[in-house]
Amino acid sequence: MCELMGMSANVPTDICFSFAGLMRRGGATGPHGDGWGVTFYEGKGCRSFHDPQPSAKSEIARFIRDYSIRSRTVICHIRRANRGRVALENTHPFLRELWGRNWAFAHNGQLRGVKKWALGHYRPIGTTDSEHAFCWMLDRLRERWAEAPTQRRLSAGIAELCDELASRGVFNMLLSDGQCLYCYCSTKLVWLTRRAPFGAATLVDADLTVDFARETTPDDVVTVIATGPLTRDEVWESVPRRSLVAFTDGIQIVGTRG
Amino acid sequence: MCELMGMSANVPTDICFSFAGLMRRGGATGPHGDGWGVTFYEGKGCRSFHDPQPSAKSEIARFIRDYSIRSRTVICHIRRANRGRVALENTHPFLRELWGRNWAFAHNGQLRGVKKWALGHYRPIGTTDSEHAFCWMLDRLRERWAEAPTQRRLSAGIAELCDELASRGVFNMLLSDGQCLYCYCSTKLVWLTRRAPFGAATLVDADLTVDFARETTPDDVVTVIATGPLTRDEVWESVPRRSLVAFTDGIQIVGTRG
Repeated sequence: MCELMGMSANVPTDICFSFAGLMRRGGATGPHGDGWGVTFYEGKGCRSFHDPQPSAKSEIARFIRDYSIRSRTVICHIRRANRGRVALENTHPFLRELWGRNWAFAHNGQLRGVKKWALGHYRPIGTTDSEHAFCWMLDRLRERWAEAPTQRRLSAGIAELCDELASRGVFNMLLSDGQCLYCYCSTKLVWLTRRAPFGAATLVDADLTVDFARETTPDDVVTVIATGPLTRDEVWESVPRRSLVAFTDGIQIVGTRG
Repeated sequence: MCELMGMSANVPTDICFSFAGLMRRGGATGPHGDGWGVTFYEGKGCRSFHDPQPSAKSEIARFIRDYSIRSRTVICHIRRANRGRVALENTHPFLRELWGRNWAFAHNGQLRGVKKWALGHYRPIGTTDSEHAFCWMLDRLRERWAEAPTQRRLSAGIAELCDELASRGVFNMLLSDGQCLYCYCSTKLVWLTRRAPFGAATLVDADLTVDFARETTPDDVVTVIATGPLTRDEVWESVPRRSLVAFTDGIQIVGTRG
């Protein structure tokens, strides 16, 4: 299994703190030593960093942690390879353009038979079932809508496709176009929203505490979502299985489906 | 005008030396202070770094220079904005998938009316004429060939599209799928190939000399192509105007057309 981490915020926020904890799981406190990647959105543009090196030893990871890139939407993934060899092209997040926007996708789990599903517009560059699933999703969205539909329709459409993929195995996923962070839980995904009054939090994976009251303004809203709780003194909420949640500006806009 | 730099080599090679010179032109020895970007291929995967900050002051540029990423194919661009505001999504190289490969594109020049040309499959994310031209090129290649054609046909097809774009203004371009580096000269592009016996070279833009004999093995073949000579003590060859050159493993595979 891999580890996922995403962030949605209403102001450009650095994820150094969460990132520091997550990166420790790549070869230090966790076994996810087969590379990692992160995508930071900045307006319609994004920066993506990928490294097939274990994140705990990665110089690029150290640079990102120290450099403190600020972003409102972030998707991060550390990999334990089960399908597809350890290589740069097999490292999440995967990226493609749809409707004139950058879409980023990261997946945790394994899917049966999905690599045989027919593709049209998008093709995988690497050999993972994850990238194949991503191409398939974008193909289906593109077939259905020539232009971006309303947020409500799009969320429902994405949830349907995720349900279909989850019927083939484990499909925990983070997906974004930079505006909205879509998160599908097949087995394991937890989240929390930090807002005023801010307190302090301590990482599970490293001896590091941060006092968010000193790092934020009273209007900040920051949601973090991950495979497992990243801090030991905050309350993380589980996303119900087989459901989609979505966040814009740190605010939950799509909840569990009844 | 922006500055372009590309590399094609038969072994993973670091471009720290050339990169150090080029980055100085972004706000130090040159006026190209509106961001920069670089794409390094590693097999079918690639790493791309983009920064709307002037390269001479960019922390990411400093990191790349010091970290020495090794690659066989590199495309680098520093920008002086003339179309499209200074923003991450307007920073070259632009990237798209075609035929299951990562294509990277960087352009120097201005094109008249190209943003009105119809697009099909690919859409720009930013607002530059360059990204529009790139999407148009990939659309045309995709229409013509459902699968990647032979290298010879592809080079001829790319040259035709470049001619058409160059008829609308200035179109100096670097394009790659990671295997081959395609370079079109509309007004200004120079190149050289370094191979045994290797000598020393001194940058035009910084007081830095490197002895390639100490950095290479006798079998290495490294071609560097740029808007203007990067070193002051080597012979740089001009690409003839309105022509395409292409390199694989540092070797020229397509020359000037007769």
